[in-house]
Amino acid sequence: MNEFELIARLTSTLPRNASVLVGPGDDCAVVEPPAGADTVLLLKTDAVVSGVHFTPETPPEQVGHKALGRCLSDIAAMGGTPLHALVTLGLPKDFDADYLDGVYAGLNDLARRYDVAIVGGETVLNPDRLMLSVAVVGSAPRNRVILRSGARPGDAIFVSGRLGGSLEGHHLDFEPRLAEAQWLARHFSVHAMIDLSDGLAGDLGHILEGSGVGAELLAHAIPISRAARRAAKAPGAKKTALLASLTDGEDFELLFTVASSDAVSVLDGWKQQFPGTPLTCIGKITAERQAILRTREGPRPLPKHGYLHFS
Amino acid sequence: MNEFELIARLTSTLPRNASVLVGPGDDCAVVEPPAGADTVLLLKTDAVVSGVHFTPETPPEQVGHKALGRCLSDIAAMGGTPLHALVTLGLPKDFDADYLDGVYAGLNDLARRYDVAIVGGETVLNPDRLMLSVAVVGSAPRNRVILRSGARPGDAIFVSGRLGGSLEGHHLDFEPRLAEAQWLARHFSVHAMIDLSDGLAGDLGHILEGSGVGAELLAHAIPISRAARRAAKAPGAKKTALLASLTDGEDFELLFTVASSDAVSVLDGWKQQFPGTPLTCIGKITAERQAILRTREGPRPLPKHGYLHFS
Repeated sequence: MNEFELIARLTSTLPRNASVLVGPGDDCAVVEPPAGADTVLLLKTDAVVSGVHFTPETPPEQVGHKALGRCLSDIAAMGGTPLHALVTLGLPKDFDADYLDGVYAGLNDLARRYDVAIVGGETVLNPDRLMLSVAVVGSAPRNRVILRSGARPGDAIFVSGRLGGSLEGHHLDFEPRLAEAQWLARHFSVHAMIDLSDGLAGDLGHILEGSGVGAELLAHAIPISRAARRAAKAPGAKKTALLASLTDGEDFELLFTVASSDAVSVLDGWKQQFPGTPLTCIGKITAERQAILRTREGPRPLPKHGYLHFS
Repeated sequence: MNEFELIARLTSTLPRNASVLVGPGDDCAVVEPPAGADTVLLLKTDAVVSGVHFTPETPPEQVGHKALGRCLSDIAAMGGTPLHALVTLGLPKDFDADYLDGVYAGLNDLARRYDVAIVGGETVLNPDRLMLSVAVVGSAPRNRVILRSGARPGDAIFVSGRLGGSLEGHHLDFEPRLAEAQWLARHFSVHAMIDLSDGLAGDLGHILEGSGVGAELLAHAIPISRAARRAAKAPGAKKTALLASLTDGEDFELLFTVASSDAVSVLDGWKQQFPGTPLTCIGKITAERQAILRTREGPRPLPKHGYLHFS
């Protein structure tokens, strides 16, 4: 199968939506800009690489799911709605067309659930390993875009889901928190939000740096995943479950802050809307520019970075 | 230097433009959609890979130039204007920060010349080789988007520049034909257009297939580059200069068709506007769905594909 045959096969079943004027097959895709003078565009790109973000043994559907899901998680973190995606495939010469069908099945399935159109892409030779680079265009109401830079002293800090141990499986089948984030943006004044990709401590650090503030987290409040607890009990474990929940990457949960006066409404509303998804208040934003973890043994500094891709 | 330090260094000098609301550093970039109800969005992604699209010896500025230039060439082929770009860097662990500075210098320089904002991107580990994946958002007037599918029997076929031998150097320093394409779209009814990346024969094939038509090219009219002529004279040359001009990839020139009644106006206007850039009428569109090359020895079929990335 050559490049043109592969592209024809992969593009024959791509999800479209009402805004697509010209899909794959021309020099560029042509789409309607989102309607409304109060709408802005969100742009995001990310990539997954074999041997880094997944292994050759990973089911291909999960590879496609993860490649798109990472970008959708970032759109969610702005309170936005994803609209269009482009996919660049970096392929070794001996690519397996059936495996790629599986990759696209996972990618298309996730796209369809959120009405995201896959409007094109490109195929290039990446001799040693499979790489998927995904670019996503989304939209958000101009005055409700949620940045990392809006956290204020006194804010309550919330996190969705349970953290740590994502590499046990969650990083391949996570659901981007689009519905939750859009609901938050619509009903509350969310001061700052980020999706957890580097680990809670690292990503909280991005909010603190962007907002020029500090934070106090309560160690006993951090929601720890079962996977992180299990891993901590395994022989030779290198992290406690708490440390894993603070520093493991790829949770793809929402971390956000709201005024403390909104905290109870947020919790109550969330429980009604998303009863299957935990939401936990884990601490508060402080004026003093440091990140503190309150433990039974007293306060400790939070590590600055949870996970470094190149260290 | 770790990932965060590298990103801070590379993003400190990125080109912005008036439409950027939030640049690099948040989960997504936030930009103004292009104004006007009659404007549509163009979306494109492409990538370059070390050892495939450039070599470790290629000056880094040219790597960056080519990575962005390929996408801009596609925006040009729609008659559009590029607005924003995102860059995903796939990096080996032992990346050279100074080399990457050079890559970004080339990329930023090209972006600035066309007022394209580099609004963000991502850094991932690609263990064996450098890869740059670029996504570009552009705009075009709704009724002047130029597709591959509008060629009609009787149309004159034009090509810009001189073709073949691009690997001798042109593929690293070509200028995307944005000014030329926008001028064409503004002043003429261009029926079909494509940028030459696979080679004249292959890319003409895309127009013919998309439009359901055929073509007759005149062999003596094809503008052959000096590089292709030189390569054809070298000992052990595998292609004649004519074959190179038909099948070599990465010319990044414009191939387009207009009604034959517009042909003289197009040629005259182009010569005035772009005196340094050749424009050549190389044949005509026919109703019969085949591609013919008229040579002194008689008509011959054009090869269907000029260049296959995976064959």
